Amino acid sequence: MPLLLAPEQAIALDRLLAEANVFGVDCKPVPGSGNPLIRGLGSLSSACPEQISFLSNPKLQEQLLGCRAAAVIITPAVWEEQLKGRDIPFVPVLCSEPYLMYALLAQWFDRHRIEKLPKGIHPTAVIAESAQIGDGVSIGPHCVIEEGVRIGEGSRLGPGCVIGAGSSLGKDCLLHARVTLYHGVTVGDRAILHSGCVLGADGFGFAPDPRGQGGWAKIAQLGGVLIGDDVEIGANTTVDRGALENTVLGNGVKLDNQIMIGHNCQVGDHTAMAACVGVAGSTIIGKRCTLAGAAMTAGHLTIGDDVHISGATAVTSSILKPGRYTGVFPFSGHSDWQRNAAVLPQLGALRRRVRALERQLQESGDAESCQTPSQ
Amino acid sequence: MPLLLAPEQAIALDRLLAEANVFGVDCKPVPGSGNPLIRGLGSLSSACPEQISFLSNPKLQEQLLGCRAAAVIITPAVWEEQLKGRDIPFVPVLCSEPYLMYALLAQWFDRHRIEKLPKGIHPTAVIAESAQIGDGVSIGPHCVIEEGVRIGEGSRLGPGCVIGAGSSLGKDCLLHARVTLYHGVTVGDRAILHSGCVLGADGFGFAPDPRGQGGWAKIAQLGGVLIGDDVEIGANTTVDRGALENTVLGNGVKLDNQIMIGHNCQVGDHTAMAACVGVAGSTIIGKRCTLAGAAMTAGHLTIGDDVHISGATAVTSSILKPGRYTGVFPFSGHSDWQRNAAVLPQLGALRRRVRALERQLQESGDAESCQTPSQ
Amino acid sequence: MPLLLAPEQAIALDRLLAEANVFGVDCKPVPGSGNPLIRGLGSLSSACPEQISFLSNPKLQEQLLGCRAAAVIITPAVWEEQLKGRDIPFVPVLCSEPYLMYALLAQWFDRHRIEKLPKGIHPTAVIAESAQIGDGVSIGPHCVIEEGVRIGEGSRLGPGCVIGAGSSLGKDCLLHARVTLYHGVTVGDRAILHSGCVLGADGFGFAPDPRGQGGWAKIAQLGGVLIGDDVEIGANTTVDRGALENTVLGNGVKLDNQIMIGHNCQVGDHTAMAACVGVAGSTIIGKRCTLAGAAMTAGHLTIGDDVHISGATAVTSSILKPGRYTGVFPFSGHSDWQRNAAVLPQLGALRRRVRALERQLQESGDAESCQTPSQ
Repeated sequence: MPLLLAPEQAIALDRLLAEANVFGVDCKPVPGSGNPLIRGLGSLSSACPEQISFLSNPKLQEQLLGCRAAAVIITPAVWEEQLKGRDIPFVPVLCSEPYLMYALLAQWFDRHRIEKLPKGIHPTAVIAESAQIGDGVSIGPHCVIEEGVRIGEGSRLGPGCVIGAGSSLGKDCLLHARVTLYHGVTVGDRAILHSGCVLGADGFGFAPDPRGQGGWAKIAQLGGVLIGDDVEIGANTTVDRGALENTVLGNGVKLDNQIMIGHNCQVGDHTAMAACVGVAGSTIIGKRCTLAGAAMTAGHLTIGDDVHISGATAVTSSILKPGRYTGVFPFSGHSDWQRNAAVLPQLGALRRRVRALERQLQESGDAESCQTPSQ
Repeated sequence: MPLLLAPEQAIALDRLLAEANVFGVDCKPVPGSGNPLIRGLGSLSSACPEQISFLSNPKLQEQLLGCRAAAVIITPAVWEEQLKGRDIPFVPVLCSEPYLMYALLAQWFDRHRIEKLPKGIHPTAVIAESAQIGDGVSIGPHCVIEEGVRIGEGSRLGPGCVIGAGSSLGKDCLLHARVTLYHGVTVGDRAILHSGCVLGADGFGFAPDPRGQGGWAKIAQLGGVLIGDDVEIGANTTVDRGALENTVLGNGVKLDNQIMIGHNCQVGDHTAMAACVGVAGSTIIGKRCTLAGAAMTAGHLTIGDDVHISGATAVTSSILKPGRYTGVFPFSGHSDWQRNAAVLPQLGALRRRVRALERQLQESGDAESCQTPSQ
Repeated sequence: MPLLLAPEQAIALDRLLAEANVFGVDCKPVPGSGNPLIRGLGSLSSACPEQISFLSNPKLQEQLLGCRAAAVIITPAVWEEQLKGRDIPFVPVLCSEPYLMYALLAQWFDRHRIEKLPKGIHPTAVIAESAQIGDGVSIGPHCVIEEGVRIGEGSRLGPGCVIGAGSSLGKDCLLHARVTLYHGVTVGDRAILHSGCVLGADGFGFAPDPRGQGGWAKIAQLGGVLIGDDVEIGANTTVDRGALENTVLGNGVKLDNQIMIGHNCQVGDHTAMAACVGVAGSTIIGKRCTLAGAAMTAGHLTIGDDVHISGATAVTSSILKPGRYTGVFPFSGHSDWQRNAAVLPQLGALRRRVRALERQLQESGDAESCQTPSQ
């Protein structure tokens, strides 16, 4: 259910904007337009009269005048060109970056919710004596904190998290329920880790076993996982530990749900990956890249900075030049697909036939020109 | 191990059929053919003499006479055309819909197993005082039920489930071990939720952070998840919470394992998705659709009712017309693939070459026709 | 963080090699070159002076002389051809199979770590009275062991594992934190199961419900899961239970993370699958196969022994002949892709146009040859 503060917790617009605007974005209500109490944040089409809303997508502009919100964040241009002088039913809040301000307001409301969650260390949590737990840390029911773990101040662990021996979390991390860190995993400050994610499971490494009939000898994985600050990792995502050294995620890396990062990978700062992406082992990805949903990369590749991979694209070789890369079979009605896909196994042959035609026509052209009167 | 009742729990065929047939399917043994005791349900090829079996796939018809089951469910047509008057070693049960009856019998045996599981609330479960727990609810060891949660009567939670603050489950739900609901998730009656599924994790939303070098400002996700009645969700599947409003799954939606449903998605009644499907954020899917394994859809699409997506197909634009849609690169031997795939980057060029040939031939044809005697 | 023994735990090279070499690989230091104390295992480029390293990839040969390790495992050929007679800063260890010896050394160091983990049964574990727990079994905090479970001697369960009623684990298994076995799952000896994996969830089976508007009747899944010896299963991987019989994984099967094995599948001995692979229900895969990352197979297929599937390949029909198979759309710059992909829906038409050109040219050739002087 969408979040709405209880009536007695409603906050005045000016105070909300001041508290939420931790980036110092240029953002102020039109003077004299009022200071309503706000209980939540809604979209233009659904906001109720006690919510604040925003216009960032120009396509939604037509929803503006029908919006029932108490206040709406808009750009000064929208104000000047469309609203000024008109009788509008909400407080217009002029802001240079409405989408970013929306993000900050959403953070404020969510922080409000989180701050009211139970604090402290639940008596059912099992915490090793040698663990170092910072001030203000909250640890939920049935968590297990093994030997030598360090948890930075202000971090919060939901129910059922397991932090393996010698691992560490920075300050102000938020672990939702049932996050698992194996041993030897280091996570920086302000991480957000979602339920079911697993950091530090064994990379997939085997040597052929010469004794057996096709059997495999496990290469135990002795490296760890090293994760920077301000990283978010989605539900059921897995980041494997390195074989000998660390698997590394840089600062500000954002991983959605059900992503797989293989052992020995390195992911550069601020790179973001949407759900269901797989990065095979030992691949190095640069800074500020994006991988859209269900993209895959082979192992042992190098992908440079500012590379953008389209969804469902399989990257099978290194990419050193910034830009957008794609490789998706276009879908169509099934029988159309059948008809066209049937040609794929003959593409090489088709090209040869075209070459043959070209040669034939060339020769017949040559022959014709041989017969021209001028000769 | 396949399920088989203890000998003292064996049930007479007539009573089993009566108890299992909750849909009132037309289903009766051939009169006078006996009423054997049944301990389980098996396939035609593997059923032992204390099991009941069924024939629904015509391809398996030849297994019928060798079947060792005590009773076999068949259509009246099979009885009339193949078995009547022959000496058959099992009780023939005539049924208009053997496959559906198989489903109902399987449900009966599984219910039998579930009913014998431990009941009540395990003392290691941690349950907030404000939680409302319905009559006959079972809560397994190490579950955590947070503030304001409501659990409908007759629901059963396996070990280690976490139900976040303010979430609710309907009546007669079955949660297997280690299911996670974040806060603000509403699930209807008779849901079946499998281990490791995560409902209500944050959608993947970020605004570019103008202060940093390519950094991202989190858009906290304030919406919830709203799930209808009779929904089944597979192991390690994730359904993200909406940004401002709810992510919605309709009644009777069936999701297999390791599926990802992005934030703000809406999935219509009775739509079923096989394993490893990904639906990116804000996509709306109609009723009675099927998405086969590893199909993917981009975000912000509309897919109408009765649309069927083939496995491993990437849907990159909206589909409004019912039907089957496909987009899969056909596999082949590796060197054949190499040869044919090498032509793909030249397809545009190949088409131009064919056009050029056509033009050339057209011109030469025109030229030739100029030289015809008739002119 | 990479693993390094405490200084007081350092082990002499000769003893380390003797203890690690459980396969009896041919492996000995060059006589008279010393017996240094070893604290860890590192790559050629990163090993510190108290580590042992190895050269197995010829591409890394140039790193050999700069290696700071105390000892390096090399082949006799490398010794003879490159190092013999030179002044080298490490103890050369001559070995017929350096990569395998690396695996065995890594196992030794990891075993060393595991042996020091807490032993015994944690008081917060909930264990049914009828469970049979072998000698030397360790069970972590908050585990749940249901009725009739059997756990073989020497097995170790990390925190939060759930073993369903009647399931069994063989000897010397290692279950990391939060592994889930449903009821009726049988796992052999020496299994390694990673966090978040789920064995025995319901297969995805439904019969159309004739009463509803497109609804589904669940086919309860009565089979189990049967897993051989020496199997490893990655984090968040799911193996569904069979509909009536067992889903089966043979001996030595290795599954990486986030793999999905559908109900009724059979996977042959020593077959290995990389991350994100999906195998749909009732597919039978032979022995010694490999499926690279994100490969998918449709259901009800037969894949023979020694078949190798490339990454991101969708296998849509049976493969009976050993070999490598591929089906991947090659990626490229986005606008190149757009240009070439646009031709795909016209491939059938393109082929027809080429045929028409061939016919036309053939006819015009025939016509020309009619006009040759020789006629």
